[in-house]
Amino acid sequence: MPSRRDLANAIRALSMDAVQKANSGHPGAPMGMADIAEVLWNDFLQHNPTNPKWPNRDRFVLSNGHGSMLIYSLLHLAGYNLPIEQLQQFRQLHSQTPGHPEYGYTDGVETTTGPLGQGITNAVGFALAERTLAGQFNRPGHSIVDHHTYVFLGDGCLMEGISHEACSLAGSMGLGKLIAFYDDNNISIDGEVRGHGNVHGWFLDNTPQRFEAYGWHVIPKVDGHNPDAVKKAIEAAKKVTDKPTIICCQTTIGFGSPNKQGKEECHGAALGEAEIALTRENLGWPHAPFEIPADIKAGWDATSKGARLESDWNDKFAAYKAAHPELAAEFERRMAGELPADWQEKANAFIAAVDAKGETIASRKASQNTLNGFGPLLPELMGGSADLAGSNLTLWSGCKDVNVDVHDGNYVYYGVREFGMSAIMNGIMLHGGFKPYGATFLMFSEYARNALRMAALMKASTIFVYTHDSIGLGEDGPTHQPIEQTATLRMIPNMQVWRPCDAVESAVCWKAAIERQDGPSTLIFSRQNLAHMSRTQAQIDAISKGGYILRDSQGTPDAIIIATGSEVELAVKAAEALASKGKQIRVVSMPSTNVFEAQDQAYRDSVLPPSVSQRVVVEAGVTDSWWKYAGSHGKIVGLDRFGESAPAGQLFKEFGFTVDNVVANVEAVL
Amino acid sequence: MPSRRDLANAIRALSMDAVQKANSGHPGAPMGMADIAEVLWNDFLQHNPTNPKWPNRDRFVLSNGHGSMLIYSLLHLAGYNLPIEQLQQFRQLHSQTPGHPEYGYTDGVETTTGPLGQGITNAVGFALAERTLAGQFNRPGHSIVDHHTYVFLGDGCLMEGISHEACSLAGSMGLGKLIAFYDDNNISIDGEVRGHGNVHGWFLDNTPQRFEAYGWHVIPKVDGHNPDAVKKAIEAAKKVTDKPTIICCQTTIGFGSPNKQGKEECHGAALGEAEIALTRENLGWPHAPFEIPADIKAGWDATSKGARLESDWNDKFAAYKAAHPELAAEFERRMAGELPADWQEKANAFIAAVDAKGETIASRKASQNTLNGFGPLLPELMGGSADLAGSNLTLWSGCKDVNVDVHDGNYVYYGVREFGMSAIMNGIMLHGGFKPYGATFLMFSEYARNALRMAALMKASTIFVYTHDSIGLGEDGPTHQPIEQTATLRMIPNMQVWRPCDAVESAVCWKAAIERQDGPSTLIFSRQNLAHMSRTQAQIDAISKGGYILRDSQGTPDAIIIATGSEVELAVKAAEALASKGKQIRVVSMPSTNVFEAQDQAYRDSVLPPSVSQRVVVEAGVTDSWWKYAGSHGKIVGLDRFGESAPAGQLFKEFGFTVDNVVANVEAVL
Repeated sequence: MPSRRDLANAIRALSMDAVQKANSGHPGAPMGMADIAEVLWNDFLQHNPTNPKWPNRDRFVLSNGHGSMLIYSLLHLAGYNLPIEQLQQFRQLHSQTPGHPEYGYTDGVETTTGPLGQGITNAVGFALAERTLAGQFNRPGHSIVDHHTYVFLGDGCLMEGISHEACSLAGSMGLGKLIAFYDDNNISIDGEVRGHGNVHGWFLDNTPQRFEAYGWHVIPKVDGHNPDAVKKAIEAAKKVTDKPTIICCQTTIGFGSPNKQGKEECHGAALGEAEIALTRENLGWPHAPFEIPADIKAGWDATSKGARLESDWNDKFAAYKAAHPELAAEFERRMAGELPADWQEKANAFIAAVDAKGETIASRKASQNTLNGFGPLLPELMGGSADLAGSNLTLWSGCKDVNVDVHDGNYVYYGVREFGMSAIMNGIMLHGGFKPYGATFLMFSEYARNALRMAALMKASTIFVYTHDSIGLGEDGPTHQPIEQTATLRMIPNMQVWRPCDAVESAVCWKAAIERQDGPSTLIFSRQNLAHMSRTQAQIDAISKGGYILRDSQGTPDAIIIATGSEVELAVKAAEALASKGKQIRVVSMPSTNVFEAQDQAYRDSVLPPSVSQRVVVEAGVTDSWWKYAGSHGKIVGLDRFGESAPAGQLFKEFGFTVDNVVANVEAVL
Repeated sequence: MPSRRDLANAIRALSMDAVQKANSGHPGAPMGMADIAEVLWNDFLQHNPTNPKWPNRDRFVLSNGHGSMLIYSLLHLAGYNLPIEQLQQFRQLHSQTPGHPEYGYTDGVETTTGPLGQGITNAVGFALAERTLAGQFNRPGHSIVDHHTYVFLGDGCLMEGISHEACSLAGSMGLGKLIAFYDDNNISIDGEVRGHGNVHGWFLDNTPQRFEAYGWHVIPKVDGHNPDAVKKAIEAAKKVTDKPTIICCQTTIGFGSPNKQGKEECHGAALGEAEIALTRENLGWPHAPFEIPADIKAGWDATSKGARLESDWNDKFAAYKAAHPELAAEFERRMAGELPADWQEKANAFIAAVDAKGETIASRKASQNTLNGFGPLLPELMGGSADLAGSNLTLWSGCKDVNVDVHDGNYVYYGVREFGMSAIMNGIMLHGGFKPYGATFLMFSEYARNALRMAALMKASTIFVYTHDSIGLGEDGPTHQPIEQTATLRMIPNMQVWRPCDAVESAVCWKAAIERQDGPSTLIFSRQNLAHMSRTQAQIDAISKGGYILRDSQGTPDAIIIATGSEVELAVKAAEALASKGKQIRVVSMPSTNVFEAQDQAYRDSVLPPSVSQRVVVEAGVTDSWWKYAGSHGKIVGLDRFGESAPAGQLFKEFGFTVDNVVANVEAVL
């Protein structure tokens, strides 16, 4: 029977060989964490390689995602659908083994990691989702939701600011089923983080003390190459159920490489053929590259155990279903990501009611009204705000605070942690069972920007809500006034950005975001009131196409005004003023350029006929990307400078967002 | 003689009255921190209100910038050029008292604050700049650089991830002259951060323990309303010179307001006339709004003391100048932000040498070569990287590590702290005496994005360096491959983004960034080799215009190809292929759209004649903002989806960055 070290060495060999074959990648972390991974996966991890989507599996996150060969080795060895040929294709085009673990590319990869700090933050989301789902669905005698979230992370993750946001909140939340393994190897790319000899380090934190300050259960100084020590630590971690645990594992990066272990050299480059030969010898691993002896493979194979685990759970779920049929059906619906059967009907009825009411309110208020309308239909909603609940208007009547004592809520007080909130939401979304939304001021989307991108990359349908969308926020001034934010968010591939012009568009964009299954949505709302726009039913239906004719001319328009959000009213008034001068002006409301561009050419041409090149775009933000719509002959009323601190009305006037100026611009293109 | 409390109450009155008059703003923090501010400013702060730019002044940063009336009150009372009429114009258009403290609007505001966590991070930069400048310039018997950096911060700043990055690094660096005051009032916008009764909190950190983990000197549990306690704490802080100090001040938000103090209610809204009347009574402040009795004003007036402090320093500086005339002249040059007299000549000679050499190298390597060329001319350079020195190639031969023991260096190992690095650089820049540059992968500009915006808003000439600029980075895959980043960075108002195409353009963009005095520059470099482009001297001179004709046609071009960075070579090859088919193609290299757009219309039209609408843009990134240049009749060879993990050459081919495809696009517009 192979020893634990032999089993771990399979990871080391696969990792160094795959990186060598690709001549690209990171062998150091997989080789350093192999012993820890071996204990966790073989003795603890509850999963089923033949059904990577089994709802009650433990979640495993490799926050130090550059060590991707670690997870690929584990998945291959445990029996996931990841044949050895794929490991041989590491980092090659269209393989299942890209440079960093990519969600959707590889069974068993729970989240895409690589951008440091976000994996641990996703893991906090997984753990929060698990506890909340358990709170909502488990019943006495029926623990159908009951799994752990395990996360590996390194010095890089711990230096990143987002690790503070996530771990501080995890501590405040008491997420007892989150267990983190800190790969304390003293090495980052620039060298020894705690210094060496005369060279001083740049990361001298007492990390155990830091995590104690967060209220975590800390297990310090575990020998990460001693399986017994690791096993004892995990057992201790599982016993503490009211606090997350961090197991601080002292490891040697590149363990096994006689000349490169313990040095930065083995972090991010192939070891080289000669050193690999020496490492084979040193580890006692005589097998050829990508060759795993049968006894080693058998020692890793988790398929039988996994099938049994799932089968046991299926029995438990059947008993639950017998006792609580409606809950069980609801659990299945939510884990499948399906909307309630009556969703369309009720959502459309709500939108019709909003239209009938015709209120002139801030779109942030319209957003809250929508939450009050849709919320009762959607128990999967998991809301929150980064300490701006009263400004973002993210609380609705059915909100219940999730916290250390209340596990069945649906609202998170994230604190002033925009990036943390966003990546936690991605984790909640990926866990399944929830539709997370979270808010801050639009400006502070910048603090969280890469988490939005990660959602888009992972096709995760997280809903990012932003209020205070322009100079219209007024007195808080240029630090808080978005200028370029809406435009830059639109540029994230697979992101759908909405900036609605009134309460009806606000409700429709919420509906679109809730229905979206293949990527995130960004909903951008105003602080200030926006006038209700009257519409036909056909126009209401057209909102979901991203852009539509809101006010049309008689016959071919002399010019088209395209506007979004708070500037739509201005466009309509300008069109009216021009109509009084005998001009035929079409007004196009364009709440989502991203969605409009996904429509077919015929529809787009019907809204913006190529023959009409007299176009003016109005949006209180940067202009560059609007030339696509304005065209060479058009004009843009926008804002390519920072704002100022003053009441909103004065600012709109100061920066040319007036009927007169829009009219003048249209007349200039006519 | 007024009591200390009377003096502090002047801040409270001015703050509540100004917020009331504006009916907008944040009275809570100024009222809560008034006693602390009074002790710091009246007993410790070394500054001269009549010369807010005195080089050796203590720096004061209000990281909780929403409490702007605190600093406006202090500046007014101390005798800065901020008359009472300006306080009455709080948050009004073109006043000196915008909603958040804005650098450049108000004498004595050292940095713009409001986006939480960045103020404390700027302060780390100030403290690092001070210590390094002292290390470089002070001589035995001559301490001409010797000041403290004081920073106020609240729970919001401490929840933000960037506070972790900055404070961890400050601890590792042992910045002994940084003294932070934590306004521990238990309140953030959503309520009581540590919870209350049945409501659980979202920020339960043991902050003193957290800062001990960072290696700070921690003074816990100071009564922030007891001037003696505050004074003793500051004295103790100043005595510890090898660690930064955090003084944890327990305060009551909105102190003095009988019905609103201690509650979120007073955080971000006017107290209301009735409550203000009660507060006046409660505080024993019978004076009318904006009326400061003479004895109170006298108790605050720091002009005489300030003049004496600066005069004493001038004497010291004169003695220094006598002993070290060259150093003194260099100090004066650097604090004035002037370049060396021979800069132009030597920089141009270096560029000429790069051109003569004609190397085909990665532009990140060209960047390093430029640092080796320019570095010896510019002792004000303060370099660094977020743990990617070997990848970003930010180290040059004259680099010397700044750390806890070495104070006269010029290079910072920032660790994996992109946002922290960027905001620290802003602090270094604002301090004066340095030209900071710092690097990471272009993707991770996203982690730091709001600090870049803050540099642009403050007109701070920080240099942000990014390498691995496109799918050309290859195997690391979509998490690391920039697609939309270059385009979105260009959209930040007042940011100058450069993406050079070869070693010559790389050197020129560095020169432009170094010479820029009114805003930041972003320099974007490739991982992979880029071919040298031959140029005339006139073309070399034109690079600094942001866009220029690199290859021209005979007579009016049939079409223009516009390209940047690694795609310029592709454009040139496509033009050559088309020339062989008899087509006249102009190639425009556009390393900086921002700079090109600042040129006059005549120049822009000479490069891109409006009459030539046959245009193709080639850039390996999102296309939306390029329609401005391509025009309605043009085409764009770009990338509007995420990348993949594979060798770079394969990816360029996969995504259409081939000569054939560019040729086909040009032929389509002809």
